[in-house]
Amino acid sequence: MSLQGRTVGVVGASGAVGREMLRLLAGDAVPIENVRAYASARSAGTAIDYGSDQLTIADLETLRDGVAPEVMLLAASSSIAQQWGPDLVARGCVVVDNSSAFRMAADVSLVIPEVNGETVRGDTTPRIIANPNCSTIIMLMGATPIRTAFGCTRMIVSTYQAASGAGIEAMDELRTQSRDVLDGQPPAPRVFSEPCAFNVFSHDSTVDPESGLNVEEAKMIEETHKIWGDDRVEVLPTCVRVPVLRAHCESVLLTTEQSVDLTGVRNALAGADGVQMVDDRASNDFPTPLKVSGGEEVLIGRVRVPNDRTVQFFVAGDQLLKGAAQNAVQIARLVFSD
Amino acid sequence: MSLQGRTVGVVGASGAVGREMLRLLAGDAVPIENVRAYASARSAGTAIDYGSDQLTIADLETLRDGVAPEVMLLAASSSIAQQWGPDLVARGCVVVDNSSAFRMAADVSLVIPEVNGETVRGDTTPRIIANPNCSTIIMLMGATPIRTAFGCTRMIVSTYQAASGAGIEAMDELRTQSRDVLDGQPPAPRVFSEPCAFNVFSHDSTVDPESGLNVEEAKMIEETHKIWGDDRVEVLPTCVRVPVLRAHCESVLLTTEQSVDLTGVRNALAGADGVQMVDDRASNDFPTPLKVSGGEEVLIGRVRVPNDRTVQFFVAGDQLLKGAAQNAVQIARLVFSD
Repeated sequence: MSLQGRTVGVVGASGAVGREMLRLLAGDAVPIENVRAYASARSAGTAIDYGSDQLTIADLETLRDGVAPEVMLLAASSSIAQQWGPDLVARGCVVVDNSSAFRMAADVSLVIPEVNGETVRGDTTPRIIANPNCSTIIMLMGATPIRTAFGCTRMIVSTYQAASGAGIEAMDELRTQSRDVLDGQPPAPRVFSEPCAFNVFSHDSTVDPESGLNVEEAKMIEETHKIWGDDRVEVLPTCVRVPVLRAHCESVLLTTEQSVDLTGVRNALAGADGVQMVDDRASNDFPTPLKVSGGEEVLIGRVRVPNDRTVQFFVAGDQLLKGAAQNAVQIARLVFSD
Repeated sequence: MSLQGRTVGVVGASGAVGREMLRLLAGDAVPIENVRAYASARSAGTAIDYGSDQLTIADLETLRDGVAPEVMLLAASSSIAQQWGPDLVARGCVVVDNSSAFRMAADVSLVIPEVNGETVRGDTTPRIIANPNCSTIIMLMGATPIRTAFGCTRMIVSTYQAASGAGIEAMDELRTQSRDVLDGQPPAPRVFSEPCAFNVFSHDSTVDPESGLNVEEAKMIEETHKIWGDDRVEVLPTCVRVPVLRAHCESVLLTTEQSVDLTGVRNALAGADGVQMVDDRASNDFPTPLKVSGGEEVLIGRVRVPNDRTVQFFVAGDQLLKGAAQNAVQIARLVFSD
């Protein structure tokens, strides 16, 4: 599957996710003349790498009158997605949106290719397809093969989320603050309200006053229900930022429906697409953000079965790749595959 | 309660925990002439702060012939504790040991003063009393008030553990590696086998090939059983290091025996000794390692009751203080109180 013969646009091309999308398209050998890169007026006119070549970023406003590409990858805010998504669809475009704007809309597919990709394969009808939240994708890449084999009634997860989820500015803030602290200066929070260097803090999204869930946690719950097509599974997440640049980790505990054993879980995970086991008890070799950074597979380890209805594992995924850009490009490839 | 009138020794006085013990003793106004600081021959002869004054560290070997102090705080390895603990007791000393050497011995009390401190209060019989593992202490400071009010059958915990748990050298390694990475150099792991700067990794203790539990997790399970006097509670920990200097966080989920509600949990925690609530949903103000570093209370927030048998919370505690030095000094104070 490749996007080689298609015209493809990227909105938010100057951001952390947009850059990775362009890198993946270049890897798919989409010719540079078939690719358009868009961003806000602020970034328009700047050059950006495309394989060994360079693209010039266009002002998003110029898209209003030109010919829309066959696929548009949106790596922008929810408000940009709401503003442009329906218009692009009306002009014949398949839109893959990385924002949360359309994820829960009843007529929009929410897709992790390895989990529910068959729902969009080969269907080039102009429409919006939503890319799930990064933490949801990484969790379900590990949990789905276990659920398929043994069922799942409950999932408890604590995340270790990188700065990249809040964009390039947050990654820069982590570097700057770390240097400041090492130099004996106080950290100066700007993107995050809490200091991010040498610290851990509850996810920086709004907290619901009733449930106590932050927006990131609410997404993990509702998106899991939609992707699995199962509203009964109880998802109990705690989302936390750690001073890591670009990969998320998650400590996950599943309650299974059927009786489970370690060999069965390992077999289920070993046969799963997009998953690589890093689970060597003897050498204490398990998934880490650094091991997965830049990699396209999700890493799974610390697999344990403490009783015959419980599975624990630790998963790491590159937030910018499988958590965002790569999953979106995979969706687009699926749409244009036979 | 104070140790003001006692003679007190600290073994491992040059380490991260030993230094905090001396700071707390100085805070208790134990006169400098009543305090002895010991370490290995390598550190002997060096001066160390004691309040506004300074102590000279003695070679531990010199303890063999002198008069033993009334209380000896051991902040050293398990092998040092095994070598010296029984000998010191034979010479009339109450030994409070921060290592894991004696924690699970049937005739040794394992004490968190706020949880089961009454078992040692006012009993100055020469003996060894064990200080629990830092992660156990911090978890049970949050979990015990909830268990007391509602019972507890199951506890699932994922930790966010600081470098300090592996000593001063590990804290230095985190600083050095962070600077190296910021300067574009590869991190050079020495204390930890995994890079610790801008990374997250499974706890650096040996992993049992059968259960898949590392030693830190096994301690959290068996120490909880002993401190709570309940072998039936199912403890399911995942222990993880994060690039933080000196305070641990833990994401905890309890299954309660009785029906539970948010107000009841908040009341139980608000009335608990040594616990401070940092749980403001409106301003996203919750516990962090930086907020608790240097503080003697454990901070608790993100309190949620997703169903009537489940409580979730996030706890932060200074690993060197409540997780080690402070808990040990509190035990000694209790022993010598009326």
